[in-house]
Amino acid sequence: MTTTETAAGVLPEMADVPARDLRVAVLGVGMMGADHVARLHSRVSGAEVVAVSDAFTEKAEQVAAEVPGCRVIADPMAAIADPEVDAVVIATPGQFHEAQALACIERGIPVLCEKPLTMDADSSLAVVRAEDEFAARTGRRLVQVGFMRRFDPEYAQLRLLIASGDIGEPLVVHCVHRNAAVPPHFTSEMMITDSVVHEVDVARFLLDEEIAAVTVLRPKATRHAVAGQSDPLLVLFEMTSGRIVDVECFVSTGVAYEVRTEVVAEDGSAMIGLDLGIVRQGAGTRGAIRSTGIAPDFRERFARAYDIEVQRWVDAARRGTIDGPGAWDGYAASAVGTAGVEALRSGRRTEVRLAPR
Amino acid sequence: MTTTETAAGVLPEMADVPARDLRVAVLGVGMMGADHVARLHSRVSGAEVVAVSDAFTEKAEQVAAEVPGCRVIADPMAAIADPEVDAVVIATPGQFHEAQALACIERGIPVLCEKPLTMDADSSLAVVRAEDEFAARTGRRLVQVGFMRRFDPEYAQLRLLIASGDIGEPLVVHCVHRNAAVPPHFTSEMMITDSVVHEVDVARFLLDEEIAAVTVLRPKATRHAVAGQSDPLLVLFEMTSGRIVDVECFVSTGVAYEVRTEVVAEDGSAMIGLDLGIVRQGAGTRGAIRSTGIAPDFRERFARAYDIEVQRWVDAARRGTIDGPGAWDGYAASAVGTAGVEALRSGRRTEVRLAPR
Amino acid sequence: MTTTETAAGVLPEMADVPARDLRVAVLGVGMMGADHVARLHSRVSGAEVVAVSDAFTEKAEQVAAEVPGCRVIADPMAAIADPEVDAVVIATPGQFHEAQALACIERGIPVLCEKPLTMDADSSLAVVRAEDEFAARTGRRLVQVGFMRRFDPEYAQLRLLIASGDIGEPLVVHCVHRNAAVPPHFTSEMMITDSVVHEVDVARFLLDEEIAAVTVLRPKATRHAVAGQSDPLLVLFEMTSGRIVDVECFVSTGVAYEVRTEVVAEDGSAMIGLDLGIVRQGAGTRGAIRSTGIAPDFRERFARAYDIEVQRWVDAARRGTIDGPGAWDGYAASAVGTAGVEALRSGRRTEVRLAPR
Amino acid sequence: MTTTETAAGVLPEMADVPARDLRVAVLGVGMMGADHVARLHSRVSGAEVVAVSDAFTEKAEQVAAEVPGCRVIADPMAAIADPEVDAVVIATPGQFHEAQALACIERGIPVLCEKPLTMDADSSLAVVRAEDEFAARTGRRLVQVGFMRRFDPEYAQLRLLIASGDIGEPLVVHCVHRNAAVPPHFTSEMMITDSVVHEVDVARFLLDEEIAAVTVLRPKATRHAVAGQSDPLLVLFEMTSGRIVDVECFVSTGVAYEVRTEVVAEDGSAMIGLDLGIVRQGAGTRGAIRSTGIAPDFRERFARAYDIEVQRWVDAARRGTIDGPGAWDGYAASAVGTAGVEALRSGRRTEVRLAPR
Repeated sequence: MTTTETAAGVLPEMADVPARDLRVAVLGVGMMGADHVARLHSRVSGAEVVAVSDAFTEKAEQVAAEVPGCRVIADPMAAIADPEVDAVVIATPGQFHEAQALACIERGIPVLCEKPLTMDADSSLAVVRAEDEFAARTGRRLVQVGFMRRFDPEYAQLRLLIASGDIGEPLVVHCVHRNAAVPPHFTSEMMITDSVVHEVDVARFLLDEEIAAVTVLRPKATRHAVAGQSDPLLVLFEMTSGRIVDVECFVSTGVAYEVRTEVVAEDGSAMIGLDLGIVRQGAGTRGAIRSTGIAPDFRERFARAYDIEVQRWVDAARRGTIDGPGAWDGYAASAVGTAGVEALRSGRRTEVRLAPR
Repeated sequence: MTTTETAAGVLPEMADVPARDLRVAVLGVGMMGADHVARLHSRVSGAEVVAVSDAFTEKAEQVAAEVPGCRVIADPMAAIADPEVDAVVIATPGQFHEAQALACIERGIPVLCEKPLTMDADSSLAVVRAEDEFAARTGRRLVQVGFMRRFDPEYAQLRLLIASGDIGEPLVVHCVHRNAAVPPHFTSEMMITDSVVHEVDVARFLLDEEIAAVTVLRPKATRHAVAGQSDPLLVLFEMTSGRIVDVECFVSTGVAYEVRTEVVAEDGSAMIGLDLGIVRQGAGTRGAIRSTGIAPDFRERFARAYDIEVQRWVDAARRGTIDGPGAWDGYAASAVGTAGVEALRSGRRTEVRLAPR
Repeated sequence: MTTTETAAGVLPEMADVPARDLRVAVLGVGMMGADHVARLHSRVSGAEVVAVSDAFTEKAEQVAAEVPGCRVIADPMAAIADPEVDAVVIATPGQFHEAQALACIERGIPVLCEKPLTMDADSSLAVVRAEDEFAARTGRRLVQVGFMRRFDPEYAQLRLLIASGDIGEPLVVHCVHRNAAVPPHFTSEMMITDSVVHEVDVARFLLDEEIAAVTVLRPKATRHAVAGQSDPLLVLFEMTSGRIVDVECFVSTGVAYEVRTEVVAEDGSAMIGLDLGIVRQGAGTRGAIRSTGIAPDFRERFARAYDIEVQRWVDAARRGTIDGPGAWDGYAASAVGTAGVEALRSGRRTEVRLAPR
Repeated sequence: MTTTETAAGVLPEMADVPARDLRVAVLGVGMMGADHVARLHSRVSGAEVVAVSDAFTEKAEQVAAEVPGCRVIADPMAAIADPEVDAVVIATPGQFHEAQALACIERGIPVLCEKPLTMDADSSLAVVRAEDEFAARTGRRLVQVGFMRRFDPEYAQLRLLIASGDIGEPLVVHCVHRNAAVPPHFTSEMMITDSVVHEVDVARFLLDEEIAAVTVLRPKATRHAVAGQSDPLLVLFEMTSGRIVDVECFVSTGVAYEVRTEVVAEDGSAMIGLDLGIVRQGAGTRGAIRSTGIAPDFRERFARAYDIEVQRWVDAARRGTIDGPGAWDGYAASAVGTAGVEALRSGRRTEVRLAPR
């Protein structure tokens, strides 16, 4: 089952997985890699980080020190080859991805590779071919690329909406991708390869087809642009079916991180990224309407709250205590409930009686 | 540290916890209990469900069968007493909570008790006193009550906003709490004790003070109300400081689950529940503004996407495969990137060259 | 036809009225009265202001000087009695309303009286009875009270929505009425009689029934309140049918003017005042939805723009000139259109050729 | 003063104009022309429609019959030449505009010409030159073109925002222009000349510069497109300064009329058309914010309600009666106010006493 075919939600209920935790090595512990270590350690079920590797040994040691049982393995290839490693996360600089991904395929272990897969199309194709060969033998795929937007609930729902046929055939997609600022070495080429690459995947993911041609327009540049670079860019994709996707990429807005995608289709349109969930426009029984869904029940509305509540309780309980509303809060609620029921029955203002704390 | 003092976010990065997973018994596996089992098993890190208990043995067995290593223990008291149980989740009917919570305190193990803590104020106070006695000896609290709204990111941010002083002293709080429908046995009393109880905790949590008096008004009832019951209700809380909280509770709307809270304060107001995040109103440099925050960077915007991505990858990797965008997706992105850079440099439409799949 | 029965819009298309302009006297030219003079003179069709009256003669002369043909009549009773006055607008302080309204009824001429009609219920009833007597003889009503919200497109649409039955029987109405600040003489009593009076009319207008009882709660007061006054207030209306209306009235918010009304009904709810038009919640074919209407065509979307355009053009044309986009703008649009059609046909970038200006 | 330099609002308060009403001839009384007749007759102050002309005499007679004192003049040139006509509205088919506009200039009377000014750039330039010659002699302009969006409050505010410098230098403008449906004779060329022409003017109006080049892309067409036509289109304008404007024009959406414009600038962005007023994004003191303005006072919030109220009252008063809340409504409000003040003072529920109606 692919990500996007989960109708009801994004999280699987109970996976059919072995009882033992997955032993993961994380290669590269810069910002993204360190985030992945923290995530695997504290928020993800069923995995433990057993090894980290980084060109900066100190950084690796610092990260490993926070995770009980995690070793530093200086050579990433040694980490991949380690028999106590079941799977690998690649968060090293892009130029190392090809060799590391190929080594994982060679050993037959799953790998989550941050984008880009490799530095150019030819080397990426080499990874594809190596994995194809493995899959032909075993029936299993090994290489996952870190296009995380596919897992964003809004993008996942947008794809489901398209797949449902409710808005008809998509014709045009408008995208906005803005960053507040980028480092001084960030070039216009990197706007294509590091930023717009997400819209490349979004276009392919939403429309289920390849991109046939690209055009890049350079509007008047902002005075905040990295010297000598064109920012913003306006990028146009022609999909193989003739659909067009336009992407405004603007990486020095000075404002915030904004990502917006609107699908314009034959029987309606849908937009995400306005903090309104999916905003749909279509013809209703009473004329045209703009609509957003509302949560059908408290389990969906507060799904994340429940996850956070229980995760925090587990973390505290492992230290023998709690982290959240306590017995007094339960007592106070009972006392107000008692007064409330009395107030309901009497139709009068009723005082709440609380014992001294 | 309490829940709401986490400034940057709701999720802790790396907790200082022992390496061994917490062994949890879940008492009661109806809807809420079964949800908690799935959550602990599949989405929460650092815990395993080792026992379940339910008056309906078949249901308990069915749930246990989905979790490797999980036993059914018929008697909930036996589950609490089991030496292989480190902590307990109570999701049984309310009348059993008091005895079960007291047994957990007796054994000195942490417990997450679904609301209500107990069936009335006196028995709740008994739990408070028992835990006070334990805490006096050990310095640790044991009983957490399932008021999950405190962990909802919107409520947590709303409390932080109040605490920041930015909107000044709160004066009035308006709440709306609506359900599409309730079962036929649901009485107006239960609207107070089962539904409004959440606003009781929200009022106490946001305003950091107790409720001094309650008044309940009965507007004209909907024809969809359970026979003989008043629905909607309008409930008024007077806080000890004189602030007023009003709550519309309406459990037969036929529409959806809607929860809205607006805090009206001396220097502005803030509302949650419109699917717009926190909507703030205040005086700005250019006159009054209504504002919502925008994510500062992609890590915050896509935080949940990353968690889901990695959780799904771990689940798949434990079966030796992947669950997300694959090597071909990485290759296609590389090929488009190459064409895009060429298009940027040439200023022309550039075709994308893809190898046959 | 009453205001609210205009289905398609709020503005009548062509009224069946005599050709001669209505000659209006405006009594009281403080802020509201002066606004009405400007409105009648510059934005309203079919009327001319022929007389103004004010206790401050200078102010009256200043206002009259701006309106060709407008006289100052010192005594408001003389203005009402003047044979060249066809109708009267009363914008004097409230204590003068009763005598002035009665004089208009006496003369049998229409009057638009700013709220309050008079200073208390007994004197208002005297006006009602006098007009009843006139109407019994002539079949015509003469006294209109300035409850302008009935003419606000959002309130008018909200009443139509209720009348349509689409959201079912209304049960509860929530109102918010906030001002940034009030003058130092403004008392809590005036919050009821000058501010909440609008919600009194809104409740009666939307629900088509009388108010049976009122309760006023005093939450903790803001430090910005006028000394010794309670601000905010929470006012509860019980309607004769048992429906309940709650009103938060807060006149020292320091923020802005905010008016919000939400009708909670048996089959859905609807809210205005969020700058989103009517926000409806109800059960749709695909689950619960929150929706706002979209304009069906450009005439509705740009209705106000057309009115403003033509009013400004008329004002300029009377001075022999224009006030808006000129011939060059028309020419430039033609030139771009020509290039655009060529670009469409050729599929190529096409330059626009403009003559020198 | 140009349209957009009115800071406080869009409507002038009191114009410096002669007392006599402007006598207007309306040429062409199809949908647009008939709308203009109704507008001039019923909603615009200071003008009367004295003549209409249309190729369909019956239609002209029907429209004239609704306006006291309005004649039918069969020949539009005779209407322009009529000494009792002070100004002309041209709403005839486009091919007649050139001759009619030139005749107005010849007579030296103001003309409001619906778009297009003429059928091509050369003839438009001829009108420009003729008016230039008149203006050189008299210092007055005569020809206004019906680009009504400049008078739309949202567009006017957007231009003011740009002019204020608050969002910095504009770089890119995104436009969406959608119609539910078009008649079967509507071609892709007409999408450029009749629909996108509004964005041509919007781009020039907002950015205060000319369009240098146009490119038109044809995405995959909707199955609802007029046979043989490309719909939607993606149109790109390059402005003389290098800014880029993109326009999605889609005239067979089956949904509604949607117009959206987003200006992306060096220090923030602003969007209109979401029914949220101007949605601004920028860096605030507390990080990035998305904001919309709130009305500062009731005069602005209810400006349109007051205009409608008084217009309807004038229309009714000319028939000797009223059209809005009456004396009883004023009395009921007084009675509730009396009860409310008593409730405020006593702190108790207070019944409202109403005389029998």
